[in-house]
Amino acid sequence: MASDEVVLLDFWPSPFGMRVRIALAEKGVKYEYKNQDLWNKSPLLLQTNPVHKKIPVLIHNGKPVCESLIVLQYIDEVWNHKAPLLPSDPYLRSQAKFWADFVDKKIYVLGWKTWSTKGEELEAAKKEFIDCIKLLEVELGDKPFFGGETLGIVDVSLIPLYSWFSVYEKFGNLSIEPECPVFVAWAKRCLEKESVTKSLPDQDKVCDYALWRRKVLGYE
Amino acid sequence: MASDEVVLLDFWPSPFGMRVRIALAEKGVKYEYKNQDLWNKSPLLLQTNPVHKKIPVLIHNGKPVCESLIVLQYIDEVWNHKAPLLPSDPYLRSQAKFWADFVDKKIYVLGWKTWSTKGEELEAAKKEFIDCIKLLEVELGDKPFFGGETLGIVDVSLIPLYSWFSVYEKFGNLSIEPECPVFVAWAKRCLEKESVTKSLPDQDKVCDYALWRRKVLGYE
Repeated sequence: MASDEVVLLDFWPSPFGMRVRIALAEKGVKYEYKNQDLWNKSPLLLQTNPVHKKIPVLIHNGKPVCESLIVLQYIDEVWNHKAPLLPSDPYLRSQAKFWADFVDKKIYVLGWKTWSTKGEELEAAKKEFIDCIKLLEVELGDKPFFGGETLGIVDVSLIPLYSWFSVYEKFGNLSIEPECPVFVAWAKRCLEKESVTKSLPDQDKVCDYALWRRKVLGYE
Repeated sequence: MASDEVVLLDFWPSPFGMRVRIALAEKGVKYEYKNQDLWNKSPLLLQTNPVHKKIPVLIHNGKPVCESLIVLQYIDEVWNHKAPLLPSDPYLRSQAKFWADFVDKKIYVLGWKTWSTKGEELEAAKKEFIDCIKLLEVELGDKPFFGGETLGIVDVSLIPLYSWFSVYEKFGNLSIEPECPVFVAWAKRCLEKESVTKSLPDQDKVCDYALWRRKVLGYE
């Protein structure tokens, strides 16, 4: 697929964008990165994702694919020569999709609340966040990665949120490592992969971004 | 797969359960139907879906699969001898998954609001609901079904909500057919399929259920 034209519409602190970056890096796909201004959306973004108007959008030979978990599956099907993100067995595929969906429905939503809510809502979110990370620790078991010996769709979907962990810890007053050492050990293994390190922004930069958002939301 | 043991944990008015019923009927899979009491959850439900504790759960030879869109994809991969729910081309697959996801994120959520909210929230939901149905009409175009000549994952995911339309119309004071004739014509085509008619409950029964829920919520 040497002649493929691949463009990624993204926003640098987005964990949904990061997962697409990691998947493309795992597959060795070269692409043009176009950072988007989400407060002044480009004609290209509005044209390629007219329904949700959100990043990431993967534009492959002019055809847009939206919604990051769907993009990951698309990437896995198109560039199927290396680094499979999903198992081939239907049952194992269903389980991998289940946990990737869990990351979106629980970890992302609860993580967001740790820095953008207050009072009882914040306390409830913090408790459930840790409970959900512990569920993931059980699912990981003694495997190095959720995908087994290599990164799978759950790893690729989850590790971007690690770049937000200092935000959760700082603004939500959380201590994740003492409560979830298995999870943090997994994250550090992911960070040994070049596909991950080159796709994740610096935690301090993400913190600065979250601080700015909190000011906009009136929390600072 | 004559020796397959297939059990479906379901709740009769659930559109998420209905879509699994339709898919199994399309594939000609026999199964044991176990209606669940969601206010007194069975040990089997808690054991097979310990994370979300929700129906539907498809238990195939003792192994549970949860989250209805994931279940549909599992069914399509395991019983791949007939009635494909997803296209084989990766791009077309991604588009079908996108619209099935849109049904969950928009049509289901907005439909729910038409009978369980009030005032400004209700009015905003009604407007967006119609706008979203119109988006689906554009996506359908002049095809008989979203899946083309046969039911695909979008049809199977969407048509169960039609059994809730009299609820939306009655309690939300909505008139869907005059605004969305293409959509209603599509729904009537779906209702000519035995796989659909035998999987959907009577609209009046669903109305009675919604009326009971509204009483519990304090709206009646």
